[in-house]
Amino acid sequence: MKSDLDRLMQERDMDAFVVTGGEEFNAIRFYLSKGAHITHGSIFKSRGQEPLLVCSRMELEEAQKSGLKVRTDAELGFHERLAAAEGDSYTATAQFWADVLSEMGLNGGRVGLYGTWQINKTIAQLGVLQEHLPQYEFLAEGKRTLFEEAMLTKDQQEISRLKSVAERANSVMETVWDYIAGLDVEGEFLFDESGQQVTIGDIKGLVRRELMACGLEDTNTIFAQGRDAGFPHSRGEADMPLKTGQAIVFDLFPREQGGGYHHDMTRTWCIGYAPPEVRDAYDTVMEAFDISVESFGLNKPTHLMQEAVLDHYEAKGHATIRSDPRTMEGYIHTLGHGVGIDIHESPSISHTRRDDVFQIGNVLTIEPGLYYPDRGYGVRVEDLFVIDESGALVSLTSFRKDLVIPLSK
Amino acid sequence: MKSDLDRLMQERDMDAFVVTGGEEFNAIRFYLSKGAHITHGSIFKSRGQEPLLVCSRMELEEAQKSGLKVRTDAELGFHERLAAAEGDSYTATAQFWADVLSEMGLNGGRVGLYGTWQINKTIAQLGVLQEHLPQYEFLAEGKRTLFEEAMLTKDQQEISRLKSVAERANSVMETVWDYIAGLDVEGEFLFDESGQQVTIGDIKGLVRRELMACGLEDTNTIFAQGRDAGFPHSRGEADMPLKTGQAIVFDLFPREQGGGYHHDMTRTWCIGYAPPEVRDAYDTVMEAFDISVESFGLNKPTHLMQEAVLDHYEAKGHATIRSDPRTMEGYIHTLGHGVGIDIHESPSISHTRRDDVFQIGNVLTIEPGLYYPDRGYGVRVEDLFVIDESGALVSLTSFRKDLVIPLSK
Repeated sequence: MKSDLDRLMQERDMDAFVVTGGEEFNAIRFYLSKGAHITHGSIFKSRGQEPLLVCSRMELEEAQKSGLKVRTDAELGFHERLAAAEGDSYTATAQFWADVLSEMGLNGGRVGLYGTWQINKTIAQLGVLQEHLPQYEFLAEGKRTLFEEAMLTKDQQEISRLKSVAERANSVMETVWDYIAGLDVEGEFLFDESGQQVTIGDIKGLVRRELMACGLEDTNTIFAQGRDAGFPHSRGEADMPLKTGQAIVFDLFPREQGGGYHHDMTRTWCIGYAPPEVRDAYDTVMEAFDISVESFGLNKPTHLMQEAVLDHYEAKGHATIRSDPRTMEGYIHTLGHGVGIDIHESPSISHTRRDDVFQIGNVLTIEPGLYYPDRGYGVRVEDLFVIDESGALVSLTSFRKDLVIPLSK
Repeated sequence: MKSDLDRLMQERDMDAFVVTGGEEFNAIRFYLSKGAHITHGSIFKSRGQEPLLVCSRMELEEAQKSGLKVRTDAELGFHERLAAAEGDSYTATAQFWADVLSEMGLNGGRVGLYGTWQINKTIAQLGVLQEHLPQYEFLAEGKRTLFEEAMLTKDQQEISRLKSVAERANSVMETVWDYIAGLDVEGEFLFDESGQQVTIGDIKGLVRRELMACGLEDTNTIFAQGRDAGFPHSRGEADMPLKTGQAIVFDLFPREQGGGYHHDMTRTWCIGYAPPEVRDAYDTVMEAFDISVESFGLNKPTHLMQEAVLDHYEAKGHATIRSDPRTMEGYIHTLGHGVGIDIHESPSISHTRRDDVFQIGNVLTIEPGLYYPDRGYGVRVEDLFVIDESGALVSLTSFRKDLVIPLSK
């Protein structure tokens, strides 16, 4: 968690780090600045000191919401550096960073680089930094980074935000269930009270409005029916009419309005009735879900959980990405992932990543599925869990796991 | 525009480019793939050939909405590369890129790198690419990049999307104006028909709902009152009550739902009446606006327009970032910027960037302002313009520029 940063820097023999980037959503800047809406700021931290947020004067007021120490680039002399560099922002930035680090008491050492930025700009800036600031060694971690490790475990403040998002997401799913349950049916189609045929797009509109009403942001929710449900990340077709007896994969993973913590939950629904083949697949997926939860153990390697699920599916005759790495059907993804400011964080529950173990403070999904697009269906069931202070695996996704939405009319 | 890509590659002696990145919104991937919601795809293009989108099998269905040629990484052998590299995704990616480029007929040459990604991952991947693929030279452009140049001019399809977003944004602003005009006033506070006091947060909620209802996405809209209006990028405080006689800067820059083209417009409003000092500042800003439009000329350097505005403000006794680079009040930003999939694109209307000229197909803002936070106000007026095929500067922002919202009750 955030309080581990100094220790994690020490382990890496890192004297300082800089988190920078452009206007893109920047998860690490968000993490350090409590989500202040800054688009031009960089955060400097030397080991053992509090971070310093350097922002544009345009954003001073927003930057102060970070709770960090804040200075503007103007007062620290960026514009003079820019003029001296004849408008070359890369050179000016390199010199400005040296100014800021020096003011923080650092005049050389190992500096980690983090954040989100355009690829070409990152590489161009790195070249200029290396050329102009030979006294610094710039570090770019490829894996198990400082921030991946810090964000791997959530602190109490983060967990309470994640719980709040979870409650709201579950309540939105309940509203959608209730709406569908109250629709009129004619043949295989559904109609609202004004007699309008209901489409996937209508449901997605409802989801967006309900999310917004409780301060959450839609993130291209998956509501995929029939063959589309057979592709794990198909979003569903807006103009497709909602139908009875089709597998619908509803994967809801909203985040706090304007960027922030996520929830992540999936249910598979059949409206009115479930065809036997979908019911069978659903039972197999629910068995996989139960096997996952049963195989949990604190400090146990996560890959063992995925392997238990792979064994289960393969024993039932389904292809998996372990039995056939090119398969397009069967069980074709990993079992779970951490969730926080990014929708996909560490740890990973994967048979190919063998270095994660379940730890107190992890917030992660368990989401077994089965996909048969050519047979017109897919099934996935997903809860978000926290490993609480007692070491127990606790679901944050309270919503029922029924397959069939009974029609009330 | 997009049809210039081969010419722009030729000018750079670039044999191919790769657009890659993670789950972050990736403007260039969006640009090339018509906004398909892919989170793990890379786009490969060799000069003179159509681009190839390589995606995860999880996203095949979405990827096909791009209209591009699509292959999955599984069918092209990524997972075998990953297994051979013992799970090291950077090495596997480097070898996989060589496989893909080779299948496209390329076995060496100059390859541009673009997209949006985590800074540390970009640098880590670059190192592995350079080590494993010595037959390629990887290019990272710092400025005036291939895509900045392509996106500098919009094609007819893009302009019609921008016009549609413009119409919807203008209509949302009209709705907000009408809502405020119909409020009840008591002292300096405003109340809705149920007698509830109206806050900035209420207005922002209305904006979000209205945007959503017309398929647009809120992007942390600025609705900043009083002192907050004096900081150009302050978003405004949700719990602050709306008041009469305060300068309110309302900067609305929504984009198409789920990511896409933007509009960008700002109005400054005073509810009921305008204090004389705000009125004076407003008149000075409107003069700057008119001076801007009058100084427009096709193929004319853009910095001349900013300089005309700087001359105007300085003659009136206001500080500017030219007269005092560290000033926190007066005119403290550039005059305008291109708008498209990113909210800030080229060209820039700045006195420090002297290499832009006005061209047919530019879509750009003109947004003079004046900021006096210590006196409790700021003023900005902004339209989005297109330079049409006849070379005329045409506003896409039809909404009225009145300062005062008269209260109807």
